[in-house]
This record gives sequence, structure tokens and C-alpha cells, in this order.
Amino acid sequence: MIDRLINRIEKMANPTVVGLDPTYEMIPAHIKDEMLNKYGKTPKAAAKMFQSFNQEIIDHISDLVPAVKLQIAMYEQYGIEGLRTYLESITYAKKKGLIIIGDIKRGDIASTAAAYAAHLGGVEIEGTRFDLWNEDAVTLNPYMGFDGIEPFLSPCNEYDKGIFILVKTSNPSGREVQDLIADGKPVYEQVAELVVKWGEMAMGTNGYSRVAAVVGATYKEQGIELRKRMPHTFFLIPGYGAQGASGDDIRGYFDQDGRGCIVNSSRGIIAAYRNDRKYGDHNFAEAAREAALIMKRDLGGIS
Amino acid sequence: MIDRLINRIEKMANPTVVGLDPTYEMIPAHIKDEMLNKYGKTPKAAAKMFQSFNQEIIDHISDLVPAVKLQIAMYEQYGIEGLRTYLESITYAKKKGLIIIGDIKRGDIASTAAAYAAHLGGVEIEGTRFDLWNEDAVTLNPYMGFDGIEPFLSPCNEYDKGIFILVKTSNPSGREVQDLIADGKPVYEQVAELVVKWGEMAMGTNGYSRVAAVVGATYKEQGIELRKRMPHTFFLIPGYGAQGASGDDIRGYFDQDGRGCIVNSSRGIIAAYRNDRKYGDHNFAEAAREAALIMKRDLGGIS
Repeated sequence: MIDRLINRIEKMANPTVVGLDPTYEMIPAHIKDEMLNKYGKTPKAAAKMFQSFNQEIIDHISDLVPAVKLQIAMYEQYGIEGLRTYLESITYAKKKGLIIIGDIKRGDIASTAAAYAAHLGGVEIEGTRFDLWNEDAVTLNPYMGFDGIEPFLSPCNEYDKGIFILVKTSNPSGREVQDLIADGKPVYEQVAELVVKWGEMAMGTNGYSRVAAVVGATYKEQGIELRKRMPHTFFLIPGYGAQGASGDDIRGYFDQDGRGCIVNSSRGIIAAYRNDRKYGDHNFAEAAREAALIMKRDLGGIS
Repeated sequence: MIDRLINRIEKMANPTVVGLDPTYEMIPAHIKDEMLNKYGKTPKAAAKMFQSFNQEIIDHISDLVPAVKLQIAMYEQYGIEGLRTYLESITYAKKKGLIIIGDIKRGDIASTAAAYAAHLGGVEIEGTRFDLWNEDAVTLNPYMGFDGIEPFLSPCNEYDKGIFILVKTSNPSGREVQDLIADGKPVYEQVAELVVKWGEMAMGTNGYSRVAAVVGATYKEQGIELRKRMPHTFFLIPGYGAQGASGDDIRGYFDQDGRGCIVNSSRGIIAAYRNDRKYGDHNFAEAAREAALIMKRDLGGIS
């Protein structure tokens, strides 16, 4: 997936991943009304709203951006029906050629990590493999060390999937643990070294590993430093746009060829219609496309 | 939930939580055959196997142990059908009076953490609250700091729920991050201090906080030290039994009144029938009960 992702970024000249992280509040009134009428005030109605919302966004961006990232929590909160929408949105986006990052941030040990690895490797039942989750890559949490990562390496290599391990997150309180100074270096740098080491076990063919990292856009100097220390590690960059960072802030996260990163924007794109009066509720997806185009231009100077 | 949990532990004189973490391999042949016949070689068949297996285990232990812990990964690997079993097993166990710990180890920031908090606080749709996940408590990952924890505090206090934050996990490679020495102390002690601080915001009525910790049984000295530093923090202890630790190893994790902990065993109980020839496949649940009784006796000297 890392080769496919880099190829698609270059083909589209756009290192953007759109975060399909809908909230109930951002669903336009006409979609809300339709689904409440059909399904009542139920979790199924909310799930169907997200599905309809996502599809229209996907239709308007799939020729423009290489990938989408789905934050599973937004779906999981609506239980089984919500997760059904998570899966259906993935299927829909895949059909449109988009690469799928499941933002699941799972992290556990041994046999449990192996079970979570079904997100990438599928699950076998009496000799038949079922790829029920169908993501191209997922995000993972490193707190439990290699035990929690290892089961994902074999699907990465065997089925050309990818993992993005949290190194430096974009939120303010991430510092409480990640910036503790351990043996002369912050914890996130120690984690970065582990990610580099693990990454050697799953190299792609174009210089980057299938073991990638999450590095927040909100810490410019650290991003530059991490790029130097992690020359073969691809970065997924959250924190652009709504969280405050701009294209200029993340220039140094890219390699000298303008590669090596994909930048996420969620609200800034999918809820753009709420910030621009020229788009009515019905044109939320056009507003998303326009916001994606503006982001592409903002990042255009880099890659 | 922390008060209810402690009361139930005392009433039953048993600080055990049974891990309902089934694997395909541990399902007895007669259950496998039944479900494969009914549902074919499908994820639904696997999910129904787990459901049937769990129910029989629950029937045989619900008068003996205060709580069960469900490792969501074991269900999530079978997709929607697997998660349906996760939910149905929770409903079934609750009816039998068991307290439910959802071992979900989620961890994310801000609005995403708020969405995950639906596991405890439910989700609201047009003024109606749906408690779709229905756990009494869940496990959480601290890597992103307080941003990832805060949204859970209000359901803890408002609906009497609980959270168990990973401090020191039982797996060998947990050390790679957790034992880094940061500002003179290992990272897990730094996390312990955060957990103590966060815990003050959600105290129960009997001396323990609704913000609890996961502390592995496999690190005896550290467990004793953490008990001293965390006098109001309840511990969930994995790593007993199959992972190697015994009752003696965890004596020091308890407070001077023999309270303050619940000890998990998963495979050691639910797959006990595979280690003892006197139980056939059909009596797997009797074997689980017998293993739970042995564990109760082993822990009996403590509490």
C-alpha cells in the first residue's frame, strides 16, 4: 500500500488525505430529516446519515485526493449500525479508487494484537479467509511495544497493507507522556527509533516502509527533526487546518523530493460548507471539493 | 461501578475477573459443528460459536466471580457479527448480575475520545440517549494524555461507570516504552502519577476512584511500589495464570485490608478443559468453574 499510496499522491500531485469523520452536528438538515423520517430517532438513522453524507463527499473528491481516513470512533459510537456504515463507506470509497486508512489506534498484546490484525490480514474460518474490515492501512498505538505491532507485519508484507504508528500526536496533552525526557531524549523520539527498527521488517520498493508514523503538524521543529531521523518512514500528518497548522508549518516534514508525507484534514474539508455562506446545506459536497482544492494549492508548493 | 465492584468482590470473597476472550481454537467440537451446520463456514458461524461458548461459561461462573472482562479484539476480528456477539454476551452477563469490563484499550483525542466515551455514556440522538455498548467500565490507553481521558470522566461520575488506564502492562515488550527512564522515573510511574491526578476527579465513596489502572501481575516489585504510590487507585491485574504469575506474586498489589485489586484470568479459566483430561469437550464450562474455584482459593489468602 505504501508504494500505491506514494504513486497515487504523485499522480494526483496532492498529498492530502480527507478525514471522513462526520459528527451528528455537521450533517445537513435535509439528510437528517430524510433519515429521521425513514428510520426514526434511532442509531440506524444516524448511521444512514453518515453513509449518505460520506458517499456524496467521496463522489466529489475521489478524482482529487489519493486517500481517505475514517476515524472509527465516530462510527463506533453508534454501535453495530455505525460500524456497518464504517464498512460500507470503505467499500464505496474503494470502488472509487481511494486508498483507505482506518484510524483505529488499536494497541494490545500477543494473541489480542493478532486478532486486531484481522483489520489488515482478515480472519480465517475453516480454510477460507474473510477480509471483513478491508482497510489498506490502520493506525496503531505503541505503548505496549513490539508485541502489539508484530502481528501486523505479516499482513503488511503478505497483502501489501500498511500501519501508521503514533509517534507524536497533534493534541496539546500528548506532551504529558510523549515529551517526557527518557535517557536524554523525549519518549516520542524513542518511539520513533522503535518505528524505524520495526520498519526495516516491511520495506516497500520505493524507499519507504509499510510501517509508517503519525506525526502531528502542530510541532514544526520536532517534525523536521523526525524527518532527519526517519528517512525511510512515511508520515501521516494530522493537525492541519482546523487544528491550526498550515502548509508552511509542515514543509520540513517532507523529504527533499517533496515526498514522504500525507496530510490529513477532516472538519476543514467535510464541514467546509458551514464556514462559507455561499454554499447552502445542499451543496456541502461542493464546498468540500472547493476546500480540498484550496488545500491542494496550499500543499502544492511542497510536493 | 467501583463501589459496586468492591462490594461484589467482598460479598463473593473473590477478587477474580474472568476474561471472556474466546479463540476459534478453544471452541469445543460439538459447538463448532452445530454452528458450521447452521451458518456455514462464515463469520456469523464463528460469532455464534463464541456466543454459545460464553453463555455456558457465564452460567457456570456467575455465582462465583464478581465480574467478566471481554477483550473486544476477539470479537472485532469477526466484523459486525463478532461485535454483535460482544454486545449479546454483555447483555447476557449483566442479566446474571456480573459487572462488565470492556477491554477496548481505546485512546484518542478531543472529539474522537468523546465519541469513544459512548462506550460508557451512550450516544444521544435527538434528545434520546442510547446505551449501545453497555459496559460498566472500559480499559484505555494513556499515550495521548489527558485529552484522551477527560471525555470519560463525566460518564464515570454521571452514570457510575469506570475506566482502567494502562500503566504497566504484563507483556515483555511493554518495557520498550513503559520502562524508559524519564526525569529519573520510568514512564509507567509518570503515567501512574497522571492516573492518580485524574482519579481525584472521579472518586467513589469507599476510598477508591472510578479512574483505575491496569498493572500487570508479572512485575512484582513494581506492583508493590505502585500500590504505595497509588493508594486510591484500584488495579486490574492481567498476567495471572497462563502468563505465569501466581497469587503469591501479587499479594503486594492489594491494600492492607486485602482490597484494591481484581485479578484477570482468561485462557486459564475458559480453556481449562483443554488441560485436564477428566473433563471432556462437553464439560468445558464445568472445567471453567473448577478452574475459577482453584483461582479463588489461590487468591483467598489475600482478600
